[in-house]
Amino acid sequence: MALKNAFYAQSGGVSAVINASACGVLQTARQHSDQIGKVYAGRNGIIGALTEDLIDTSAESEAAIAALKHTPGAAFGSCRYKLGSIHEHRAQYERLLEVFRAHDIGFFFYNGGGDSQDTAHKVSQLGAELAYPIVCVGIPKTMDNDLPITDCSPGFGSVAKYVATSLREAALDLAAMSRTSTTVFTLEVMGRHAGWTTAACALAAEHEGDAPHILLFPEVAFDEDRFMAKVEKALERYDHCVIAVSEGVKGSDGDFLSASGLKDSFGHAKLGGVAPLISNLISTKLGCKCHWAVPDYLLRSARHIASETDLQQAYAVGRAAVEFAIAGRNAVMPAIRRLSDAPYRWEIIAAPLSEVANQEKLLPADFIRPDGFGITEAARRYLAPLIVGEAYPPFKNGLPDYVKLQNVATPRKLTADFAICTE
Amino acid sequence: MALKNAFYAQSGGVSAVINASACGVLQTARQHSDQIGKVYAGRNGIIGALTEDLIDTSAESEAAIAALKHTPGAAFGSCRYKLGSIHEHRAQYERLLEVFRAHDIGFFFYNGGGDSQDTAHKVSQLGAELAYPIVCVGIPKTMDNDLPITDCSPGFGSVAKYVATSLREAALDLAAMSRTSTTVFTLEVMGRHAGWTTAACALAAEHEGDAPHILLFPEVAFDEDRFMAKVEKALERYDHCVIAVSEGVKGSDGDFLSASGLKDSFGHAKLGGVAPLISNLISTKLGCKCHWAVPDYLLRSARHIASETDLQQAYAVGRAAVEFAIAGRNAVMPAIRRLSDAPYRWEIIAAPLSEVANQEKLLPADFIRPDGFGITEAARRYLAPLIVGEAYPPFKNGLPDYVKLQNVATPRKLTADFAICTE
Repeated sequence: MALKNAFYAQSGGVSAVINASACGVLQTARQHSDQIGKVYAGRNGIIGALTEDLIDTSAESEAAIAALKHTPGAAFGSCRYKLGSIHEHRAQYERLLEVFRAHDIGFFFYNGGGDSQDTAHKVSQLGAELAYPIVCVGIPKTMDNDLPITDCSPGFGSVAKYVATSLREAALDLAAMSRTSTTVFTLEVMGRHAGWTTAACALAAEHEGDAPHILLFPEVAFDEDRFMAKVEKALERYDHCVIAVSEGVKGSDGDFLSASGLKDSFGHAKLGGVAPLISNLISTKLGCKCHWAVPDYLLRSARHIASETDLQQAYAVGRAAVEFAIAGRNAVMPAIRRLSDAPYRWEIIAAPLSEVANQEKLLPADFIRPDGFGITEAARRYLAPLIVGEAYPPFKNGLPDYVKLQNVATPRKLTADFAICTE
Repeated sequence: MALKNAFYAQSGGVSAVINASACGVLQTARQHSDQIGKVYAGRNGIIGALTEDLIDTSAESEAAIAALKHTPGAAFGSCRYKLGSIHEHRAQYERLLEVFRAHDIGFFFYNGGGDSQDTAHKVSQLGAELAYPIVCVGIPKTMDNDLPITDCSPGFGSVAKYVATSLREAALDLAAMSRTSTTVFTLEVMGRHAGWTTAACALAAEHEGDAPHILLFPEVAFDEDRFMAKVEKALERYDHCVIAVSEGVKGSDGDFLSASGLKDSFGHAKLGGVAPLISNLISTKLGCKCHWAVPDYLLRSARHIASETDLQQAYAVGRAAVEFAIAGRNAVMPAIRRLSDAPYRWEIIAAPLSEVANQEKLLPADFIRPDGFGITEAARRYLAPLIVGEAYPPFKNGLPDYVKLQNVATPRKLTADFAICTE
């Protein structure tokens, strides 16, 4: 009997270590070449499957595959594309099966966040629904850290390390200048619904009075008066004030602050960025000089300052996905289970996709300080181990030496095209 | 005869390696304890001298001094404060001398950019003007890289490495997502008048088509039509477009683009940030999804990704300053002279402060591509060696372990206070 091939795809916003998961999948599959045939990667995620644009990863050298471990971005391309329900969008699923059948695909690996695990869950049901034998395993990835069951989501630890490091450094800059210049610095971080990344900024502080002095979470409604009182108190006490704000912070009306009617000089609405807004509010009310930063993509792609712990976990979930698949475990996702905080010990367990899909893990209430502007000791215990260890990429000519795969397309076997409708 | 003491101060916007220059000064002075007495550091730059707030650096351990080499910010505090001319602000200079005399200061080291070298130059003339014997040496520092004579300014190489690394990483993120999501990414970098940091972004590109695709320099007037045509061309060719823009980019009227009448939802003017402006312009005209980043202080304080070359130069100018002072060379600044591009070889020379003060070195015309949107090979040859080498700080618990000095104040000897007037 011929070996079944595998399909692997990356999905949703990328991270500094999603390619490390790809590396875990590909190296483990190659080690089990008696049980898995080729691994095809979807070009731009599930879209590659729908359009039969399959990358033949067997064309890549061992060295190139190994280099994925230190390369950020998504080596095969990612996408924001959600499959609908099987009943309403049956044509999509039939197309998937057609492509899988044409390329003899028996294993499906989908590497992404909550939406992607939903897709993986739907595909895992194809066996029963459409009578096609497939083993489907989700692989967790999201810098937002909002996947349920797993202790954390690969990608988050590196983001946490980046924001805590950057904030510690910027705070030293601010403190040095505050006698005659800027006294308030606001750092905006990603995370529209869950405040994990904002919380991670607090790791920058080691002693009482260390920055950040104020955190603004998406889970806590913004109250201008209480916030301004807090800023004034920090300025009084420390002569400077460092704020970390989530892009998703909302007013008491539930609307994003950042979306509240900004206009630029071209007359266009919605300039975006909540840090400039917060900064402007403070400089107008208090007359002090304020600076702000919005690292945006820099934050989630900063492989140069990745967490070694995060990297190991990203690789481990990729490897475990292949091991689960070989064992025939359909509809699961390798998840991280914490065994102890310090030293941090963890193991990989299998989480049912049905329990992972479309769940969003917000910051628990006991991780947020009663005043709403900081984190608790419980949160610190949780976060601290996730940023431990440095995993520097190799450098060439002063810059990280990231790999670019050949990404050779597999010859198509189907004649019909499939139209992808993207927003 | 009792040994003369030294005064050292940090001035202007800080950098990732200004403390490495401090380390060079302090370690070299300690090695010459037969020729230099104590080194007093001004708390918050020259303000510390005027207010007689002198930090006794002899209270710091060897280990703490050594740790300055890997700590960003300004360990003794910096300031934005320009001394006026000796003739118009004679009281300031008389006060400086009074403090110097009280603490037996015979050596003056001032570590900063163009304005600071002007201050150093004025102080160097005190010997003749007010009959006080002092040897005054400037120490170059500015992330803007706009000091004349010296091949580059310590602080810049690390900024260049940070922006090129970050842009390369963010571009991988963008490329991975551009099939279904964001297609344009704009990175705003510091540099109000000189485009050195913007130029350094180009180092991220290795091959034709690599990001960044468009640079916007402060030296080149922004032309919306030409710019938009360039963006459309990049999108056509590469499916995505990465732009690096200087905060100081100006319209054809000579006004900063970023200052052109922004309003936020609180009704406050001048939100700042040219990247959001550029981003909004593109998304409105082309209807594509755009992201932007403004790293601000993160950029100039990123000691975790400092350039080893920059670090060595920062230390070397600090060491040379003390050596010049001991040799009695008044009114000079250690400058870096390039001996060859590849391999990069350099030496320290003494530049006269009179030729350094108040000069601003812009990007030379032959460093800017004829179309105004990129750099030339000559620029690349100049920039490439400045980012070479990694100089990671030590890490503790997953974060850089930066030193905080004790900064013990020296007992005051004068009774009169001196009022500092800051904006």
